[in-house]
Amino acid sequence: MADGGKMVPTKVSPTADVYPKRIMEYIEGFLISKTLFTSCELGVFELLLGSERSLSAAEISQAVGASLDGTERLLAACTGMQLLNRHQDDGKVSYSNTEQARLFLTRSSPLSLYQSIHYHSKTIYLCWHYLTDAVREGRTQYEKAFGVSSGDLFEAIYRSDDEMVKFMQLMHSIWNICGKDVVTAFDLSPFKVICDLGGCSGALAKHCTSAYPECTVTIFDLPKVVHMSKEHFIKEDDQRISFHEGDFFKDSLPEAELYILARILHDWTDERCVELLQRIYKACKPGGAVLVVEALLSEDGSGPLTAQLYSLNMLVQTEGRERTDVQYAALLTAAGFTNIRHCLTGKIYDAVLGHKKA
Amino acid sequence: MADGGKMVPTKVSPTADVYPKRIMEYIEGFLISKTLFTSCELGVFELLLGSERSLSAAEISQAVGASLDGTERLLAACTGMQLLNRHQDDGKVSYSNTEQARLFLTRSSPLSLYQSIHYHSKTIYLCWHYLTDAVREGRTQYEKAFGVSSGDLFEAIYRSDDEMVKFMQLMHSIWNICGKDVVTAFDLSPFKVICDLGGCSGALAKHCTSAYPECTVTIFDLPKVVHMSKEHFIKEDDQRISFHEGDFFKDSLPEAELYILARILHDWTDERCVELLQRIYKACKPGGAVLVVEALLSEDGSGPLTAQLYSLNMLVQTEGRERTDVQYAALLTAAGFTNIRHCLTGKIYDAVLGHKKA
Repeated sequence: MADGGKMVPTKVSPTADVYPKRIMEYIEGFLISKTLFTSCELGVFELLLGSERSLSAAEISQAVGASLDGTERLLAACTGMQLLNRHQDDGKVSYSNTEQARLFLTRSSPLSLYQSIHYHSKTIYLCWHYLTDAVREGRTQYEKAFGVSSGDLFEAIYRSDDEMVKFMQLMHSIWNICGKDVVTAFDLSPFKVICDLGGCSGALAKHCTSAYPECTVTIFDLPKVVHMSKEHFIKEDDQRISFHEGDFFKDSLPEAELYILARILHDWTDERCVELLQRIYKACKPGGAVLVVEALLSEDGSGPLTAQLYSLNMLVQTEGRERTDVQYAALLTAAGFTNIRHCLTGKIYDAVLGHKKA
Repeated sequence: MADGGKMVPTKVSPTADVYPKRIMEYIEGFLISKTLFTSCELGVFELLLGSERSLSAAEISQAVGASLDGTERLLAACTGMQLLNRHQDDGKVSYSNTEQARLFLTRSSPLSLYQSIHYHSKTIYLCWHYLTDAVREGRTQYEKAFGVSSGDLFEAIYRSDDEMVKFMQLMHSIWNICGKDVVTAFDLSPFKVICDLGGCSGALAKHCTSAYPECTVTIFDLPKVVHMSKEHFIKEDDQRISFHEGDFFKDSLPEAELYILARILHDWTDERCVELLQRIYKACKPGGAVLVVEALLSEDGSGPLTAQLYSLNMLVQTEGRERTDVQYAALLTAAGFTNIRHCLTGKIYDAVLGHKKA
């Protein structure tokens, strides 16, 4: 036959048995994210926290109001992800939280990431569906994802009270695990009067007052954010924490010895960052300083991967980017700050400190 | 002062320094998936494959038609993900494919996952946005994600010619890396007449004719799929591969010594699986067999995580589920097959073989 040559088995090339394990993991990354997100959203970890014993899939599905079949598959995947322990006793299967789930995935834990997960699931996941467009156009995809104009960044992010609270909870949530590290990256005890610009829920303000017994902290943010913060986050009467309503690009800044800019500069272009830093420099007491808290990129472009991904996230969602310590130092220098140092915390967020001469 | 107690620094509990590294990786899983997907979609790896030297971000952004800023961030993240090599020479930064990217992420590679990635990015990612609803309701979310009724599963999946080709390319793509393993998991050389039910693009048929020089393979699929397969996938005139148009639930099946069901049973309920297997049993030559190719779940519920995630994927997209080897054996037994064995390949897809008595 004419094509008889085809009957001989294809010689297997040496690469044919190579298996792209890492790439396969990358492909299924979103399946893992969403499995985690859905388990949190349905309240699986919360339910197990409140239970005195491990629970069966039937008990869990009934309590969280989900189908038995879907719940069984979700619990199985959570077991594979080491978020749940699976117990088998006399043929009966039941589940309990692993220590990691108990600490980080329950709503009530002081280390809870629940709200961060919720925001990732509802907002960021959808925005990232348009990553290709974001890279092509070099701009935020808020309009495509949510139908809101992104002309004013925070008008878009705070497009409803509900979205604003969720965003604030996202910010709050991450300081549960990184807050102490960033406020203790440098010894800030010399600074007694602190102003946290864009201080949002007040989570970092609380970390400051905890770490530095002699300081007071003013949370500076937009009036509606301050209102929400008082209503939802800073409920108790804390004499050392106060609020100041304003727009840090337009309104005068309160005088302070230390200004904190935590996850603020990464929202903005270099030009706007320098503009903001100059305003801070003017308001700052001589001998004072500014603490910039961000995920720092390494100079050699090698990582950290999380900061590289976050820089794409800033593209998708904001006008800004993540930067290297050298890039932050350049912005701070342009605004007049000197003696600039940075500290890597080993977690997501790092710290850069710049000083105003005494 | 009344709240003076608050001025004492909070005692750091032993757990406060615990860092949820794995959970943070789970949260950013979708960022990693989408970074990979977008890089493929924009043709970054293809461009670098065709270039004789490493390329700068400016060259890449221009060639793929994307913003420089967005491209720079994307390339940085791909470097962190070890998909690209970053070269720095005299201050000039350029990029080249890693071996993994060259083998698996370029369109033209025989091991290419490009089409699988495309389908994950465009279809599965969006479907999974509704995972919580899928678990609650215990059913597919095709209607919510794509506005098409999922009453007839493959009417929905094949909702347009374009979607049908993409789905076929998805199927085709995965056999690039797993096909040889599943057709050689058992010695199938005794079976000269093979029928691949739902044989789709014909990728597995080709693996069969390569591995077993004496066999012929009939690809059985819906008329429109057969049409597409001839047009896009099986172009050359291969005397050992033929087509048979039909619906395997309704039309009579061609007689064969071996039937292949690769990623078919996982689409359907147990009832429909037994119905299909009974039809196969009737058509099968005495002494013949059926080869079921699926991602097998372990009996003890411990994993593999990929199969557990795929079972959720079947919930989101189909009427089926992934199963354990024992569950497949039960379905095969119910249809009359005996001497049932399974083989784990160590990759995603495994094999189960059931026999019809001679």
